[in-house]
Formats: sequence, structure tokens, C-alpha cells
Amino acid sequence: MRRSIATVSLSGTLAEKLSAAAAAGFDGVELFENDLIACPFGPKEIRRRADDLGLTIDLYQPFRDAEALPAELYAKVLRRADHVFEVMEQLGAPTLLSCSNVSDQAVDDDALAADQLRTLAERAAGHGLTIAYEALAWGRHVNDYAHSWRIVQAADHPALGICLDSFHILTRDTDPAGIRDIPGDKIFYLQLADAPGLRMDTLHFSRHYRCFPGQGVFDLTGFLEHVLAAGYQGPLSLEIFNDVFRRSDAERTAVDAMRSLIVLGETLPGPSRPHGYAFTEITVDALSEQTATDMLSRMGFTRTGAHHSKPVHLWEQGEARILLNRTHPGTWQRAAAAVTVLGVDDPDPQTSGARARALLAPPAPRAIAPGEASLPAVIAPDETAVFFCRPGDWLADFTRIAADGALLTGIDHVSLSPRADRLDETLLFFETALGLRLSSDEEIADPYGLLRSKAVTHDDFRLVFNVPIGDQPDNENGQHIAFGCADIFATAAAFADREVPTLAIPQNYYDHLAARTDLEPAAVRRLGEHGILYDRGADGEYFHFYVKALSPGLFFEIVQRTGGYDGFGAPNAPVRRAMQAR
Amino acid sequence: MRRSIATVSLSGTLAEKLSAAAAAGFDGVELFENDLIACPFGPKEIRRRADDLGLTIDLYQPFRDAEALPAELYAKVLRRADHVFEVMEQLGAPTLLSCSNVSDQAVDDDALAADQLRTLAERAAGHGLTIAYEALAWGRHVNDYAHSWRIVQAADHPALGICLDSFHILTRDTDPAGIRDIPGDKIFYLQLADAPGLRMDTLHFSRHYRCFPGQGVFDLTGFLEHVLAAGYQGPLSLEIFNDVFRRSDAERTAVDAMRSLIVLGETLPGPSRPHGYAFTEITVDALSEQTATDMLSRMGFTRTGAHHSKPVHLWEQGEARILLNRTHPGTWQRAAAAVTVLGVDDPDPQTSGARARALLAPPAPRAIAPGEASLPAVIAPDETAVFFCRPGDWLADFTRIAADGALLTGIDHVSLSPRADRLDETLLFFETALGLRLSSDEEIADPYGLLRSKAVTHDDFRLVFNVPIGDQPDNENGQHIAFGCADIFATAAAFADREVPTLAIPQNYYDHLAARTDLEPAAVRRLGEHGILYDRGADGEYFHFYVKALSPGLFFEIVQRTGGYDGFGAPNAPVRRAMQAR
Repeated sequence: MRRSIATVSLSGTLAEKLSAAAAAGFDGVELFENDLIACPFGPKEIRRRADDLGLTIDLYQPFRDAEALPAELYAKVLRRADHVFEVMEQLGAPTLLSCSNVSDQAVDDDALAADQLRTLAERAAGHGLTIAYEALAWGRHVNDYAHSWRIVQAADHPALGICLDSFHILTRDTDPAGIRDIPGDKIFYLQLADAPGLRMDTLHFSRHYRCFPGQGVFDLTGFLEHVLAAGYQGPLSLEIFNDVFRRSDAERTAVDAMRSLIVLGETLPGPSRPHGYAFTEITVDALSEQTATDMLSRMGFTRTGAHHSKPVHLWEQGEARILLNRTHPGTWQRAAAAVTVLGVDDPDPQTSGARARALLAPPAPRAIAPGEASLPAVIAPDETAVFFCRPGDWLADFTRIAADGALLTGIDHVSLSPRADRLDETLLFFETALGLRLSSDEEIADPYGLLRSKAVTHDDFRLVFNVPIGDQPDNENGQHIAFGCADIFATAAAFADREVPTLAIPQNYYDHLAARTDLEPAAVRRLGEHGILYDRGADGEYFHFYVKALSPGLFFEIVQRTGGYDGFGAPNAPVRRAMQAR
Repeated sequence: MRRSIATVSLSGTLAEKLSAAAAAGFDGVELFENDLIACPFGPKEIRRRADDLGLTIDLYQPFRDAEALPAELYAKVLRRADHVFEVMEQLGAPTLLSCSNVSDQAVDDDALAADQLRTLAERAAGHGLTIAYEALAWGRHVNDYAHSWRIVQAADHPALGICLDSFHILTRDTDPAGIRDIPGDKIFYLQLADAPGLRMDTLHFSRHYRCFPGQGVFDLTGFLEHVLAAGYQGPLSLEIFNDVFRRSDAERTAVDAMRSLIVLGETLPGPSRPHGYAFTEITVDALSEQTATDMLSRMGFTRTGAHHSKPVHLWEQGEARILLNRTHPGTWQRAAAAVTVLGVDDPDPQTSGARARALLAPPAPRAIAPGEASLPAVIAPDETAVFFCRPGDWLADFTRIAADGALLTGIDHVSLSPRADRLDETLLFFETALGLRLSSDEEIADPYGLLRSKAVTHDDFRLVFNVPIGDQPDNENGQHIAFGCADIFATAAAFADREVPTLAIPQNYYDHLAARTDLEPAAVRRLGEHGILYDRGADGEYFHFYVKALSPGLFFEIVQRTGGYDGFGAPNAPVRRAMQAR
């Protein structure tokens, strides 16, 4: 199907919006009137530019408060319409979006609405144009799709149909199944938008919080099925009013948008899904490499190998594998020490890599020497590289010795800190390209601000993103790698013996823990002696402690899960953050 | 009355929060449990620190889900309570806030709730403590203050009273007048919070959007009157959950908080209120001074004077006065050319200056030579200096010649661009210290992001603030000074003759204007020929055009108001912004 995007969904001047939409592979756009008014180019010139970019202008919008009006007001509507029709002819835009009337002057009279829409459609037809009538969720008298369809039926004009917008329908919890009963050729336009799981004034919600399909809580797959079952043949169009998109780089947003539509109309082979971490790579400078080397050694890691052709060393303990990379800082390098590559244990690396690229992730730039593993590798929207590895294959690139150490068993999770305004885009990528599932969504009260913490997981592959909530895209929350272990008390004791610097936890924490749980006093005392934090879920427990930061942007966590605990100790995060902030 | 603030309202570690509260002049704090848990100091040490700062700990909070429970759950409540009471004794906190139960396990049984609260109160009394029971707006069965008061009456224990929180009461549109019927000595605690005029899920609203009194839409003056009429004698306490405050500098926030309470319990002489602009001062570097000099000359300004002792020049035209200041960039200097001082025409400068300082505005640092005017001057929260001047007085500091030019008549308004996270603080200052009134609140779709535009005005003193909406505290929207004129067409023509560079407006704008208004085609054509934008309100019209930027951060606007038009042409802002962005 054709894919379209409303110009209001993208940032910049109209010329920039058109370029970004075309670059991301869209077939057409909905032209928002304000973008035309503020544009130094006339309608014909805009049409020419769109043509040059291979874009059609599928819709002109919005035309407001046009029906169910007293006669003197309706005369003004027709005057406005005559102007718009002329502009649309010059633009080559075939359809005008007419939104249900929101003004106090609108009359609650369907017959009048139908009459006036019929007149409007007749005038449009005179210009070879059509009208798509849309029920806004906050329309004065018409606010659900079934009502708008009844009026369109009553008007009964070939140039009049309805426009369906998933936001207006799903935000009101209206059942979309009735769409199946509308003849597909009377659905003149389809707008798709998702939205987060918040409840607020619908107009405010619509103007600020819409997001791309898959980034919110609406069942857009089910919604689209109804529309397609009705026989709709027009474009799938994204009309997203979103504060972040309005100011983000238009080309990034357009790619994010296109990714959401590719997945919605899914025709790709499904993701093979990672089982766990093959490795995590940390890019280091000279100083932080020394610190990391010292820290990993104390923690029981062995430097088991060196890469054949690159300044990369492999450190191992159990199934935990860390690559320290002293490559000259690449384009995605952000700090003295930073997680830059996630090595994903994947049953079918070629398929996963192809899927990620089909979902518009650029390939990761890397030099491969003859004979080395050619791992499919892409750059995620947060600029982390993802390497898809079959277990073991890539290890042949390293000269290895056997590893000592038996405290740590593997990488439990990795926690990253993308820019706040890239969180949704990053999550959508990991969910769709790798088939991960959102498994946790927490608000954490940091001493210096609220954080949003979201985790995407599959099997033993767990990836956490922490971003600041509020007016602050930059993210100083750092990254961490959490290692699993089989005996957290033995590990903590061994770390103490080896002088691994760990984070002290206040006695107040343990006093409160004793009061709010049924843990025995001795058990709480033991946790306190080792500085271990504790959380409990419905299915198990979580024990964890922290190694002091390797660099300002990177630290380690040691965890032990029991039973089916699947969280990340969020209730303890404020304590950890407060102690780290000191 | 005593003034208190909840530690959750401030950013940082507990030690930082206490210091900030004390520095701003608070008498006490409400200690939020999470701040204790994450604190490396024990309760006794926290008490000692608060004592040293002259702060009492007025309340410990929150104690959750403590009433109307099945027996086995209630046993756990008492165990938690015993721990909390011990902690409170060490803290010296006399009162525990117990919030109405939100859990699914709560029973809808007022008698049970009263029984269990009585038991809790009896235990508290054993420690010399009291319980303040609060109806959360989202409580499972108890969610309004009248209900919580009935339960407290039924419990009938001297150590049990109620806590009133303006947010929980006013967000539900509950009539607060009933508070007058509650005996003041049974109101154990009063929490004050304001909130903006939004409608959303109450819990989400409460956790993220609360603000200080005067920054939202609640009638807190009326609310407080009811509580004081009841005979309440305890502290006025601010409990504000706000995403911005959580990450802002705690000392700033505490000052903002204290300012809101000073005004709420108003005992200061009222503001004398400005009539208009005495002058606007632009700080310039050498290069931008040349540009400004050239631009002002072309626009018809005369350099009428030089300051006796400083590198400051006065430019005049009609009542429009601009000071160009080449003083070495001071602490509030931000760009090559920036508005740094607002000279306010004030009928009583000494009273206004004293009021601003009593509202915690620091004095503006400035050198005064002997014999020069000593204008009361303060720094507003956005770092702009405000000088209070009686009309004409300050002009004696300048050697002056007569001004030419008769196009421009005065300064119509000044538009500033503070950091987004300081907007509320800045507005509260200008509203309370200068007695300005919020006269306009608009959302503007800029090509590169949404803007919030708020104006505060009195008479001919109009001040506009534009800040980005969304995750972006930094503000690149620039400042402008708008000059009034008596004949916009003559002014535009004169500017064209003198080659003042003005902003071009797209023809699309005029085509659309013709279609959406009843302006005659000739009138629209005339506007277009001069590049003049047009807006219309209920009471008049607004004509305006823009001079190209003097520096990246500063430009001029020329305006003519007719009738009682009191806006700022917001509908035209997107067009202006789009053309400026090119």
C-alpha cells in the first residue's frame, strides 16, 4: 500500500519536510495548511518540488467548522472553500479533509450537516476534488466515526466520503469493528496515530502526545485489519502531533515513521530473537583502559584473548564476555569509557541483520580483515552498534587462553542512557528489529530529577534504557553492565577481599527494609554487612550491589535472581542514585 | 504563620534540600520517607543538621494504606508504624501523614477505618506523636476531605486529626467552604499546592504537574481563608511534585517557593504597577553596537545623549528610548546584543523596589557616580535587570540633544526568551512584584518546535516570554523589542526608503488572509505591498512587520494597534518564525 505522512508530523520548513519524507521512502504527504501559508513558494512551485521528489500530495488539511451552520456563516465557509479548491488544484491535491465542527455556533442537526456537506462536495467536484469528512473526538455534535458515516450516507454525494483517524476513534474507546460495514470506496482517507497510556483532556492529548504506530498502547494492527477488511485502498498516512517530533531532525523522524509503517504492514521475515549477550564492547581511552583492566581483574575476569587485527581485548568470566576496544574513538563514541557495541547471541544472524537493515538501520561501519567473522551489524537509533552473532562463531577472531574465575556467570543486562527525545525511536527499533518485548516501565525518583526506565527483553537478553523525564534531552545518567552470579554473598565477600570498590548503602535503607518486609532480622543484617540491596516480585527475589564507577559514564552491577523475578530492582534505584550522587 | 516545605519539592540530597530550605527562610520541612532512606545520615544526625539550620521537621510522610484493612494486613501496618514512630522520635517529627488507602484490599467500611486509625493514633500517642489523616483524590474509598473528617470524628482520638491538601480538594472541584466547619485544632496539617489548567488522570497530574501557589489556576487565597477561618494555627506547607523542581537548583526553587508563600499571606504594601517603558537597555559588543547604531539611525532614532560616567548612549524617537550599553559584559550578558535591562515607568519607584526585594529579588549590581540617579533595581529570575524609574528622573544622567523622527511613538512591548524551566518562576515574579497580569497564553507552532508564549501586562507595559515546549530548557528563540507607531503604512514606506531591512512575507499568507477575512482585496494587496501582517481581535486590529535581526538573538518589530486589541499577533507568529528561519 502507499505510505504517506502529514507535514505536521515533521520539523522544519516545508521544503525540509518534503525532502525528509522522500528520503525515508514515503510515497506522499498530507499538506498541512499552515505549512503552505508560511512557505515562500506558491502552490504550483510546491507541487513541482514534490513531483521532483517523487511525492504526491494526497490530502490538504484541515478545513474546519464547515457544516451544520446557520446560513450566514455557511456563506463564509463556501467563500473559504473556493479559495482552498483553487489552491488544491494548483497543488494537485485531490482530497480536502473537513473536520467535524467544534464551534459553539454549530447546530445539532444531521440533516443540515448533510445538506451543507453535499453542497461543499458538489463544489469540490466542480474542481475535480473530493471531501473527506472526519469526526474529531472533540467535535461539538459529531465525534464518532459512525455518526460521521451516517451524515455522509445522508449527504449521498460521490465526492463526499469519510476520513478515519485511529486516534479519534481509539482514544474514545470506540469499537472500531463497525468500520468493516463501511464500503471501502467511501473511506476516502486513513490517518494512523498511536498514543501512550495516559488519560487527559483529549484535545491536549491529541495535540502533544500522539506517536507513531507501535510507540503507544493502541491496537493499530487490529484497527488496520478492520479498515482493510472494509476494502480501503488509499494510503496509510501518519498524522502525528508530537512535541518531540516538532523539533527533532526531520530526516530521523521520517525514518522512525517509516519503520513504524513497515512493521504495521509487516511482510518481512520475523525476527529470530536473541537469547542473550554474546559480548558487550566498551570503547576506552588509554586511561580508562587501565582502570577497566584493573577493575575487571579484581572482579575475577581473565584477559583471555586479543583480536587478530584490532586493538581489542577479550575479557571473560563464565559466560560474561567484555571487549575492551581502544580503537580511535569512532562516530558513536561518547565518553572516556562507554558501551558502544552489543553483541547479540542470535540463532540466525543473517536473517536478523537483514531484517534490521530492512527496518532502516544503517550498517555499522567496520573494517574486516581477511578470514575474520563477518557479523551482520547495524547502528541502532541511540547510536549503539548491534552485532548479530551465532554463539561462539566470532570468538575465532581472538587468540584465546582459558579463563579463571567462577563468581560471575554472564551478562544479566545492559543499561543505556540515550537522549530522552530518542527513547521511543530506540525502543521501536529494538522491539521491531530484534523482536524484544517491553517488560518493564518505571518512573524512578533520582535526587536530581525523575527518570523513565524502560526495559526490552527476550529470554536472557535484557536491555534497559534510562532517560530523564522533563525538559532535558541530554542524558547524564550513565550506562551500566550488570553481571549475573550464582551466589551474591560469596561474590560480595570475594570482591571485598580483592578490594573491588563497591557502593556503600545507608543503614536507613536496611532499617526500613526490616520494617516493610517479613525478612528475618538476621537476613537483613547479612544484606547490610555486604551492602546488598533487595527486591521482591510476585515470582522471586532480586539481590544486587554496585561496583563504583569505572568512568563518570559507566559502572557495573552484580545481580542474583531467584525464582522468576524479571525486574531490575527499580524500588532501590533512588538509594543507589543518591549514593552515587555524593 | 510558620512556613514549611516538603523535601520532595526540592532537588538534591537531603542535606542539600535542608540547606536550600533554610537559606530561603523556611521555618520547617516535611520529611519525605524516601529522602530519609537514601540518606547516609541516621535520623538523629538529620535532626541535628536541621536544628543547626534553624529548621523543624514538622511532618513525616507518607504512611500509606494504613486503614480499613482485613486484620492480617492491619497487623503488618502496626509493625511498620512501630518502626516509623521510632524514627520520628529520633527525628523530632511530631506528626505522621497517613494517606487514605488506595489498595484493592481496602474495605469500604468507615467504622473499620475509624477503629484502625484510632488504634494507630493511640500507639502514636504513646510516643508523643500524632497522626494527620489525608484523603487522597484517588483514594480507594475515601477521596474527599469531608469523608476523611467524618472518619476522624468517628475515631475520636486526641492524637488523630486531618491533613488538608489543596491539590486533592481543588483538583476534584470539591467546595472547600466546608472546611470552615472543621474545628481548627483538628486540622493537624495544611499542604498547599497549585496546578495548571489541564485535565488529566489525577494521580499523573499530581505527581508531575503541581506548582507553587500563584503559578496555576487554583484559588488558593480563597482556600487558605477557609482554613484560617476554621482556626488552623499550624504551618503553611508546600508539597509540590513537579518534574522541573525535581531537577532544578534547589536554592532557586526554594526562593521561588518562599516568594509564593509571602504573596499568599500578603502583608507587603501592594505594587505601584508600571505604566509603560521608561527605556529598554541593550548590551552590545563593539560589532553589534555598529550594527545597532546603523539600524536605529535608519529607523529614525536620534542619538540624543551619552551617560555622564558610563559607555552608555541614549537613542530616542517619540517616547521610545533605547540605551546601548557597551559596558564590559556583566553577569547577565548572554549574546552579542541582548536586552539586559527593562526601565519601568513606575509612579513610586522606592515602594516598588522595596517590594521586589522583599519578594527575594537580589539587587542589581551597578556603579553610581556622585549626583546620578539612584534607581531601585533588581534582578528578575530570568536574569533581566528591572530598574524602577519615575518618568524623566533618570534622564538627568544624560547630556541630551533634541530628537528627530516622528514615525515611532514608544515601546509597545518587549519579548524575552528565558530558559523554559524558569518561565513559571519568572512569571510569578513579574506578576507579584510588579503587579502585572497574565494577559495572553498561546501555543505557537514554530517550524522547529512548539513555543509557549505568555504575556504579562499593565497599562502600556507589556512583557512577553517565549519558551520552547518539550524536552528543551535552552531557549534559542531570541528577544525582540516592538515599537508602536501611529501609521504603519507610512512607517513601512519610510523604512523602505531608508533601506531598513525588513522581513519578507509569503504571498500564500495574503491569499489565505483574503479567503479567511472580509478584508477588501485592495486592503489585502496594500498589506502585501508593505509586508505587513494582520490580526483581528474582538475589540480591534493589529498591524505589524519585522526588521531583520540586529544579531542572532535580537530583532525589532513595528506595530500599530487599533481599538482595544490587546494581543501580540500570535496567529502570525508561525509565518514570521518560518521566514526568520530561512
